[in-house]
Amino acid sequence: MIAWKNLDKLAAYDKLTALKNSVNLSEAMSGENGASRVAKYCVPMAEGLIYNFAAKAVDDEVLKALGELAEEAQLAEKFAALYNGEVINTGEKRLVLHQLTRGQLGDKVVVEGTDKREFYLGEQKKAAAFAEKVHSGEITNAAGEKFTTVVQIGIGGSDLGPRAMYLALENWARKNRTLKLEARFISNVDPDDAASVLKTIDVEHSIFVLVSKSGTTLETLTNESFVKDALRNAGLDPAKHMVAVTSETSPLAKSSDYLAAFFMDDYIGGRYSSTSCVGGVVLSLAFGPEVFARFLAGAHEADLTAKETDLMKNPAMLDALIGVYERNVLGYPATAVLPYSQALNRFPAHLQQLDMESNGKHVNRFGEPVDYPTGPIIFGEPGTNGQHSFYQLLHQGTDIVPLQFVGFRQNQTGMDVDIQGSTSQQKLCANVVAQIMAFACGKQDTNPNKTFEGGRPSSIIIGEQLTPEALGALLAHFENKVMFQGFCWNLNSFDQEGVQLGKVLAKRVLAHETDGALKAFSDLLAI
Amino acid sequence: MIAWKNLDKLAAYDKLTALKNSVNLSEAMSGENGASRVAKYCVPMAEGLIYNFAAKAVDDEVLKALGELAEEAQLAEKFAALYNGEVINTGEKRLVLHQLTRGQLGDKVVVEGTDKREFYLGEQKKAAAFAEKVHSGEITNAAGEKFTTVVQIGIGGSDLGPRAMYLALENWARKNRTLKLEARFISNVDPDDAASVLKTIDVEHSIFVLVSKSGTTLETLTNESFVKDALRNAGLDPAKHMVAVTSETSPLAKSSDYLAAFFMDDYIGGRYSSTSCVGGVVLSLAFGPEVFARFLAGAHEADLTAKETDLMKNPAMLDALIGVYERNVLGYPATAVLPYSQALNRFPAHLQQLDMESNGKHVNRFGEPVDYPTGPIIFGEPGTNGQHSFYQLLHQGTDIVPLQFVGFRQNQTGMDVDIQGSTSQQKLCANVVAQIMAFACGKQDTNPNKTFEGGRPSSIIIGEQLTPEALGALLAHFENKVMFQGFCWNLNSFDQEGVQLGKVLAKRVLAHETDGALKAFSDLLAI
Repeated sequence: MIAWKNLDKLAAYDKLTALKNSVNLSEAMSGENGASRVAKYCVPMAEGLIYNFAAKAVDDEVLKALGELAEEAQLAEKFAALYNGEVINTGEKRLVLHQLTRGQLGDKVVVEGTDKREFYLGEQKKAAAFAEKVHSGEITNAAGEKFTTVVQIGIGGSDLGPRAMYLALENWARKNRTLKLEARFISNVDPDDAASVLKTIDVEHSIFVLVSKSGTTLETLTNESFVKDALRNAGLDPAKHMVAVTSETSPLAKSSDYLAAFFMDDYIGGRYSSTSCVGGVVLSLAFGPEVFARFLAGAHEADLTAKETDLMKNPAMLDALIGVYERNVLGYPATAVLPYSQALNRFPAHLQQLDMESNGKHVNRFGEPVDYPTGPIIFGEPGTNGQHSFYQLLHQGTDIVPLQFVGFRQNQTGMDVDIQGSTSQQKLCANVVAQIMAFACGKQDTNPNKTFEGGRPSSIIIGEQLTPEALGALLAHFENKVMFQGFCWNLNSFDQEGVQLGKVLAKRVLAHETDGALKAFSDLLAI
Repeated sequence: MIAWKNLDKLAAYDKLTALKNSVNLSEAMSGENGASRVAKYCVPMAEGLIYNFAAKAVDDEVLKALGELAEEAQLAEKFAALYNGEVINTGEKRLVLHQLTRGQLGDKVVVEGTDKREFYLGEQKKAAAFAEKVHSGEITNAAGEKFTTVVQIGIGGSDLGPRAMYLALENWARKNRTLKLEARFISNVDPDDAASVLKTIDVEHSIFVLVSKSGTTLETLTNESFVKDALRNAGLDPAKHMVAVTSETSPLAKSSDYLAAFFMDDYIGGRYSSTSCVGGVVLSLAFGPEVFARFLAGAHEADLTAKETDLMKNPAMLDALIGVYERNVLGYPATAVLPYSQALNRFPAHLQQLDMESNGKHVNRFGEPVDYPTGPIIFGEPGTNGQHSFYQLLHQGTDIVPLQFVGFRQNQTGMDVDIQGSTSQQKLCANVVAQIMAFACGKQDTNPNKTFEGGRPSSIIIGEQLTPEALGALLAHFENKVMFQGFCWNLNSFDQEGVQLGKVLAKRVLAHETDGALKAFSDLLAI
């Protein structure tokens, strides 16, 4: 029997709280003890990745308390309830099924006679078949010429995840000769976003993927009109250049305005939809369906490790719990995501949505206010770039920010250059290693301005290369981490009521139904 | 006589602290009182921009205390000392002269017989003349063909600022027919960064701008080699495709490896260098020197307003002080930068460096530890995109994050579409206005999950259109804001000792001179 309790009602949480500041990270990571920690505090992830948390301010005692917390909070049982089809999204009274887009984790989940795994798989196959027809030239533009560019039109989860995944694999695909179409993205209602993309593509050879679950997203429909105008102005028939990704009940589902329609449903939240058709259509068109399937396989492997009940075999759960310790016991308000891989340059923006939209909540799943901090601020940029930017504050600022590094032994393109006895890839890896130690141990100096206090915790995920499988595993790791943290905080991580009020007020502004400050601001902006 | 005192030693700071939570923002912004605030709490900026802080948790009493703080902290005098050539960067014993790249603000500053304003102006003119020769075809590739692409090679301040400025004006320039060359950027030591750019440009028609003040930046020199290899492999002479931006004393300054060299000096920090040749060469090549000059004019206008001693006429000082109130009195750890303009999509990343690298310090300008929080975490993405992402936490999370909005009445491209009775630009503006009010006033609901507490402060900078002048004014506003905050916190905002330790350790890793955890991590990454 699952009990949904607030974090501060758990006995294990009191125990954890008593361990506040029990580990001196700087000391722990010094000397040979540090080397042992690196060997010991290292957990295998899916697809050959590893999660190393040696530079986190934890020890065996803290880990034991985290394990007890995992048990008392019934994290494994709650995940099982989720993948077996219980109504986990209590706010909207919905199942949460994004894991089914990449594999079966437990019981068959049947809704109104439909096996949902079969449904998602069917849509993936539809997308694969469609992509293959585009690649083979069976589906072409009116002139019978192949499409060369795919443009995704979507916002939020229909944009950030797919865009980050595309950028993560673009160079890999180019190197491995699987880049079939170049992808571009239009998201913002700012008309300059669509204008800018349209100015720099060959619309005659472009296919557009319109993504809106409800079929009513303001930004997306507006940008669709923008694109259709551009197609018509170029003498083209929009219906021959556009597909839809939506729910079966949306107005877009059966429209003749689209070459094809691919379906998701209400059980997949936008920020969890990269492995559904929301990511599947654009990525299959860009890279080929086999690459997308490999990406899904990596995500599924990560989901399987998230089922482990032993904390030391479940990196997503462990990562989640360490994060809770840092947020609630140590009191850190933010987390930085720092991939040492230029290909992951928009991955932090995706995680920012995933995490902050899921767990940026002040009421628990029963609608009761919670008495503890929930989701942290998430931000980040790729290293080494960040080192020459905001790392100054991370090293010497007055607040401590926990860090999440990601690094790979090999780069994607295979191109490199040897300068001063090392390759660029080696320099990249040397930098991430150096940063972990600089943050953990710091350095004393007679000049206080050159002193580094250390004691700044980080973890690192290490892989051989950023392949489709590794990317899938990385994505699912963070999805599962966020889910486990939501369970700890007793939140509904799958709704987003916080986005509604702004929408309502914006409509009122556009209808000129305003007074007071809202009208005064509207006048200032000449609306 | 200037006294450099810690914030908590100022009498005005005690007074300000006593006013903690004296303003109920939600109440203040409701009804007709809210409308009066919007009219009253609005300060003109340079170039027709306005700074509106009606939705900040301040009132006349708080503003009075902020004014007293400005006076007691001698903010205007300290700025005057800076632009008149005092050694403000005490750590490195240097003058701070980036404002001189765009105009003369006070006394002539002469260093070793050189009038520094004349020097910077001379370099700007050299860059302008060079750009014009490239545009006219006087300088071409070996085949006598015009260059079509400019690629900046630099990292940190040599990348983020110039890149953000380029992206901010690219569409404007295309629309106004001043886009002369397309610009691209290589920054990361990750070899896939350079590889990716080189794969997607026409190297034969590309000119590269190598930017490194010292001439020794590891990432930049490594990427230079990468690029030179690519040029040679294409049968081209690198020396005919490359210019340098560096200091006169650097090894790059007089090398025959470059078509030309343009100079900055130690008095301009990387993150403050967009208005020097670091930004000037690439932007003049991309947009034409006249556009760059207009950008500088906007920045200079903003610098002039930053000289005002009346707080209500000095938006940068006011913005800075409100930020100090939020950080030190109200205790907020972060600030989000949210431009409602897709063209400003990398502007938050630039501000992240500018702010966090300048004021992320734990010792004052004398090297003594401070007892109060200094620079906040800065992050952000353009709206409306962010609304569909991390705004959930901003609205309903457990922590309050102050917000900095930016909006323009007109878009840049002039292209737009009318849907449901409004243009996209109107929808964009309606959304930012709606967000300000949703954050400030919130909304009660019988369902606590749909309740918005409100009381979340924001300010907005509003302009007619994002022109070169407006962009320059915006950039300088934030540079000056960060400077004033550094004065309040008694920091040296112009050094960055926090980046050094990582560099030292990375070298040790590459030389295999490691033991303990550093060696263990190096082995994990197979370095």
